[in-house]
Amino acid sequence: MSKLRDMGEKEAIRILLQRFDPDGQLMIGDDCAMVDMGREYLLATSDMINQDTHIPEGTSGWLIGWYATAINLSDIASMGGFPLGLLFALGLPPDMDMDFLDEIARGMEDCCKAHGAKVLGGDTKENPTISITGTALGLVGKKDVMQRKGARPGDIVFLTGELGNQLGWYNTRAEWDIESLLKVDPRVREGQILAQSGAVTSCIDLSDGLSTSLHHLRKAGEVGFEIEMDSIPFIGGLSDEDKEKCLHLGGEFELLFTVDPGKANSLMSTGLGGLKITAIGTVTDGQDVLITDDDGQHVLEDRGYEHFRRRADDG
Amino acid sequence: MSKLRDMGEKEAIRILLQRFDPDGQLMIGDDCAMVDMGREYLLATSDMINQDTHIPEGTSGWLIGWYATAINLSDIASMGGFPLGLLFALGLPPDMDMDFLDEIARGMEDCCKAHGAKVLGGDTKENPTISITGTALGLVGKKDVMQRKGARPGDIVFLTGELGNQLGWYNTRAEWDIESLLKVDPRVREGQILAQSGAVTSCIDLSDGLSTSLHHLRKAGEVGFEIEMDSIPFIGGLSDEDKEKCLHLGGEFELLFTVDPGKANSLMSTGLGGLKITAIGTVTDGQDVLITDDDGQHVLEDRGYEHFRRRADDG
Repeated sequence: MSKLRDMGEKEAIRILLQRFDPDGQLMIGDDCAMVDMGREYLLATSDMINQDTHIPEGTSGWLIGWYATAINLSDIASMGGFPLGLLFALGLPPDMDMDFLDEIARGMEDCCKAHGAKVLGGDTKENPTISITGTALGLVGKKDVMQRKGARPGDIVFLTGELGNQLGWYNTRAEWDIESLLKVDPRVREGQILAQSGAVTSCIDLSDGLSTSLHHLRKAGEVGFEIEMDSIPFIGGLSDEDKEKCLHLGGEFELLFTVDPGKANSLMSTGLGGLKITAIGTVTDGQDVLITDDDGQHVLEDRGYEHFRRRADDG
Repeated sequence: MSKLRDMGEKEAIRILLQRFDPDGQLMIGDDCAMVDMGREYLLATSDMINQDTHIPEGTSGWLIGWYATAINLSDIASMGGFPLGLLFALGLPPDMDMDFLDEIARGMEDCCKAHGAKVLGGDTKENPTISITGTALGLVGKKDVMQRKGARPGDIVFLTGELGNQLGWYNTRAEWDIESLLKVDPRVREGQILAQSGAVTSCIDLSDGLSTSLHHLRKAGEVGFEIEMDSIPFIGGLSDEDKEKCLHLGGEFELLFTVDPGKANSLMSTGLGGLKITAIGTVTDGQDVLITDDDGQHVLEDRGYEHFRRRADDG
């Protein structure tokens, strides 16, 4: 019989979607589920992190708590929502120190406070390793909500912030680089400004990496993309090889969004409260994600991280 | 330093509450978190199940999916809510068969359909063992909501259904008794009827066992209880020893609720659409949960299952 490790996460999700969303009506593919509440949508998203796959050895409890909170708030941010709060289900090993648990809780609390959210409740259970599922709830006006679908040919593609902050850890796997990996700043306030600007036609966060996120917008919007490598905002000091790697690295939490070209100038001059935004390309009526670099124009493949599947280069 | 296994789940929860709810204002102790939405409360609850602690070997995927759904819907039920839907975070081992995953999904779907809910979204991640966190969302009218607090001296204590359905598995640990353990029927429709009756002053489900649930209502309501052992509805064929065991067995999902004595007759004659309800005692102005059995009246201790903590009789 076929195993998860042979088929990969995408096939697992396909099986689940076929069961829960046979007509594709539930919009299950967005960063959050949307529930109609009259003038607003209730946004809800669950993200799980596990010790073995997400938390490098030596990570502080505070950073674990912050990260588990931030990645869930990022999904609310990418749809323009105002966080109502979070629930946490904590799977904890019996030999965990109580002080470490309190540090996890403090990290959650600090991340909530920084982004106008609060912890609403949760559950604790015994587990062989640390496993934390956060569920974030938010509200967004129906006319404001940003989804993966909606990009139109001619729209301009933007990115918040810079790529590459967490590359240090991937290159060194050193303890001093863990914070660059996990001290994620979800773009909650920025997402709200974007949603209310009326200029944004589609949006997603970069949690699966830039290439995969572009392909999500491509599929949802039935459009193509032309991206300029030279326009992508990387942190300083990266080699060409590093930059190439950053295109496919999951775990970035900037926002990728498309903007009506008639409204792009006004959006750029208003800004996002100090956070840099950069135009990196345009939406086309093609079917591919194309990128132009020193070698000319070629297809940018969907190579974001996929769970379960063992790759050849994983050994 | 103190470890979870020495301190137990209650101490873990105390640490978390101290962090997230220093003033006790979040009502974090109810079966669901409550978010003010104007005329209604949004109810939200997360419950995690793990292979090692909740799922006996030999359990079918369908039953795992059903159970993970049912225990979350039970929390919505105990507050009288109408389910909006569920999110699931699935931690899955890479060697899981894809067919088994589809069976889990089918169990979730069947339980949702049976109780007017649907799957809204979720997350899948790699985990050493199966770990499922369900988050259920629901709505309840502000005037209808049932909470743990609210019982008043003189109120009558009721229980839905019968206790002991899952005792078979605890006694035999045999595969043929797994269904009695996990094929939980959350009392969703019954909870809604109770909430709208205007007769119920407090309510909780029995997921932590009858003794612990009574103590939750006692603490939240600042009242005492007098329970009659002979009135408790057990399934047929139980020895006195079995009945005693059932008082403390977690994993039952009947509703325990208190009723205004002036409205009890009307509630009993209306009924809960066919489900048996039984008066098992009264609320007092005392500070203990007292139970009367053949040996007379004595204190019913809070002995529901607590995670993490190793008991002497666990070996």
